[in-house]
Amino acid sequence: MRMCDIIKNKRDGIELTDDEIRFFIKEYTAGNIPDYQASALTMAIYFRGMTDRETLTLTKEMAVSGDMVNLSEFGNMSVDKHSTGGVGDKTSLIIAPIVASCGGKVTKMSGRGLGHTGGTIDKLESIPGYRTSLSTEEFMAQVKKVGVAVVGQSGNLTPADKKLYALRDVTATVDSIPLITSSIMSKKLAAGSHNIVLDVKVGSGAFMKTPEEARILAEKMVRIGKMSGRNIRALITDMDSPLGDAVGNALEVIEAVDVLKNGKRGHLRDICLALTTNMLSLIYGIDDDEAYDMARDAIDSKRAYEKMKEWIAAQGGDVRYIEDVSLFKKSKYSAEVLSKEDGYILSMNAEAIGNASIVLGAGRAYKEDTIDHSAGIIISKTKGDRVKRGDVLCTLYSDRQDSLDPAAEHYLSAIRITKEKPQQNPLVYTTVK
Amino acid sequence: MRMCDIIKNKRDGIELTDDEIRFFIKEYTAGNIPDYQASALTMAIYFRGMTDRETLTLTKEMAVSGDMVNLSEFGNMSVDKHSTGGVGDKTSLIIAPIVASCGGKVTKMSGRGLGHTGGTIDKLESIPGYRTSLSTEEFMAQVKKVGVAVVGQSGNLTPADKKLYALRDVTATVDSIPLITSSIMSKKLAAGSHNIVLDVKVGSGAFMKTPEEARILAEKMVRIGKMSGRNIRALITDMDSPLGDAVGNALEVIEAVDVLKNGKRGHLRDICLALTTNMLSLIYGIDDDEAYDMARDAIDSKRAYEKMKEWIAAQGGDVRYIEDVSLFKKSKYSAEVLSKEDGYILSMNAEAIGNASIVLGAGRAYKEDTIDHSAGIIISKTKGDRVKRGDVLCTLYSDRQDSLDPAAEHYLSAIRITKEKPQQNPLVYTTVK
Repeated sequence: MRMCDIIKNKRDGIELTDDEIRFFIKEYTAGNIPDYQASALTMAIYFRGMTDRETLTLTKEMAVSGDMVNLSEFGNMSVDKHSTGGVGDKTSLIIAPIVASCGGKVTKMSGRGLGHTGGTIDKLESIPGYRTSLSTEEFMAQVKKVGVAVVGQSGNLTPADKKLYALRDVTATVDSIPLITSSIMSKKLAAGSHNIVLDVKVGSGAFMKTPEEARILAEKMVRIGKMSGRNIRALITDMDSPLGDAVGNALEVIEAVDVLKNGKRGHLRDICLALTTNMLSLIYGIDDDEAYDMARDAIDSKRAYEKMKEWIAAQGGDVRYIEDVSLFKKSKYSAEVLSKEDGYILSMNAEAIGNASIVLGAGRAYKEDTIDHSAGIIISKTKGDRVKRGDVLCTLYSDRQDSLDPAAEHYLSAIRITKEKPQQNPLVYTTVK
Repeated sequence: MRMCDIIKNKRDGIELTDDEIRFFIKEYTAGNIPDYQASALTMAIYFRGMTDRETLTLTKEMAVSGDMVNLSEFGNMSVDKHSTGGVGDKTSLIIAPIVASCGGKVTKMSGRGLGHTGGTIDKLESIPGYRTSLSTEEFMAQVKKVGVAVVGQSGNLTPADKKLYALRDVTATVDSIPLITSSIMSKKLAAGSHNIVLDVKVGSGAFMKTPEEARILAEKMVRIGKMSGRNIRALITDMDSPLGDAVGNALEVIEAVDVLKNGKRGHLRDICLALTTNMLSLIYGIDDDEAYDMARDAIDSKRAYEKMKEWIAAQGGDVRYIEDVSLFKKSKYSAEVLSKEDGYILSMNAEAIGNASIVLGAGRAYKEDTIDHSAGIIISKTKGDRVKRGDVLCTLYSDRQDSLDPAAEHYLSAIRITKEKPQQNPLVYTTVK
């Protein structure tokens, strides 16, 4: 088998065989196929697409290219939520305790953030003592006892995807539906959960710019998940503005606590309820109304808040910070960003707001950068809100005084204001089952 | 400027700017852009194509990536013939003396052959003493005095094309019209001739499998040539069988002498007349009939034969071999390949016949292989000929006795025989002016 022939077949629209896909993934991961052939193939896939059978094989081969987490002892109770990423997305911090307090087993191996704000692991590290690395035995014991464990990616999960994604990132072949599908789904298969809920974000801060594109991706991922024997659903959700009011690491933990402890209302709570409804519905095989009531009751009764503390404590985190969020270290400097005009907020470019948070120190521009856990943004006016000249749009926090002005500029460039009240997008466009 | 954005633009069907193309060629040649980005771009070009403006810029940038031959002192008299390659193609050996004997200035920097039989330079090296390497001064002096010089590629001609072609060869992006065009035309621009005649071959032994494909390529090359200020034409010619009766190195030199010295008739002479007609028509600005008469008279009067000897002698070759071709060293072994059935020869797969000649030692499978100049094939029955069981189809020549049987197998696999007399393809499908 020659890689050049595999490229040519895909280029010419000939469906690749399982053997060809297996050969490519095995030999590429082993370093026997050069990057220049892999990038030619991914560009050909960009143009020609992949059938479901091809995508399934690619997904499975990437999944088994490294370690596979075995969660079979939890039967149908293991559940995973995956988001295609977004600015200010702290839903994992809220969802995991809700589902675990309802009996689900939530395991998450989360990456660190690159760009925008930090990842879930960066956010959790703002809690003093929180251990992001557990042995397999500790990990499994905690899931069994507490129902939730969130750790950093360790070991050797889907090395084929890591290598291929890094290549796609610099060869303009990231936004291909079959390649996105196999990248996400291979990680989900390797992570081992029987039930999977995908949060496919659409809008200015997301990969998918329109609900139609997002739907095609969501449907493909759900088909591949089912063909792999998993229970799976996908929600297509709005990401035309940051999720919730806080962008940053400690700031987002505080907002998550606010939802679970104080019952804070709004988009963030709504989306968490939508996601947990689908997770619980899959686990228990109950209808969505029943699952929704179960999730809401977990919040209202504070059982989810208690579960959050139990989880944080189990992983070594100082629970006093959850009980009294005023203990979190505060940034030395802050500045309010004021509106320069009257009107309504038409759109908030989530990417530009992410860039503002990077400038403040809350995110990484490069892998090696360290994160300032206190830094970030508290948003006062969000999409659709009425604003007057001089109103506070947001407050910036940082330990670097000289970062405030450039961050404010980034923030203002992200906001578009119109005279007429804009239409609101639905929070959840659709659910693919 | 970022290479990733250039790839993305091409991928999305956005026309590349001159700056983007210049950046790519400069930085890729300098080793600052990795192969994996270059191959992603060429695959995107494969799918999206290139406008004439893009192709022209790519061609020019590749041309100026290395040395440029300056033939301006010969004004409108310099002329170059380029063939897209084929098995048994010894037309250069015949054409160069015809045109030079009519006053044209023919310069050729020819590659060595890889696959099939050797290149023009390999063929000329079968003449003892022939020097394939001349200094620039020697080269120019010889063109001035004799009207023809054929040397091996030396110096640093179109390094960008060399690097990119090697990459395209292993990433399934060779057969892209704009990339073929820029590869061929960049070499023609760098080689300096004012007049250019292209021989675009079509058929089983050629890149282009149909006359329609070949026409699209020919028209693109002619447009790019004219936009670069050159006089240019392209002939689309049949390559469904080897050109002439001889396949090999010395064997092809002998056949070329046969045409010029003994006036041997047939397809080979006809195609050489068609090509030289167009070359002379371009040089002198005369109509094709007049140019044809001029070329035919050069053969019939033996002026072309005398010019051939003058050229070979000027480059140090032993002219006695041209005057008496029986001096050429003969292969130790030979074998006749006999027809196993009655009928007509429907097709001769030129590529498979090329492979037979490689087995005999006449061509290279790898760059490092040495060539047996005596080895090769003399074809007795060609396309359209009637054959009876037991008739000699061809004779194989080699110094390696054990190569004869496998070569015969290759040869027989190349021949298809039918009961009914097949239609003949025209020798020249069309001329693009």
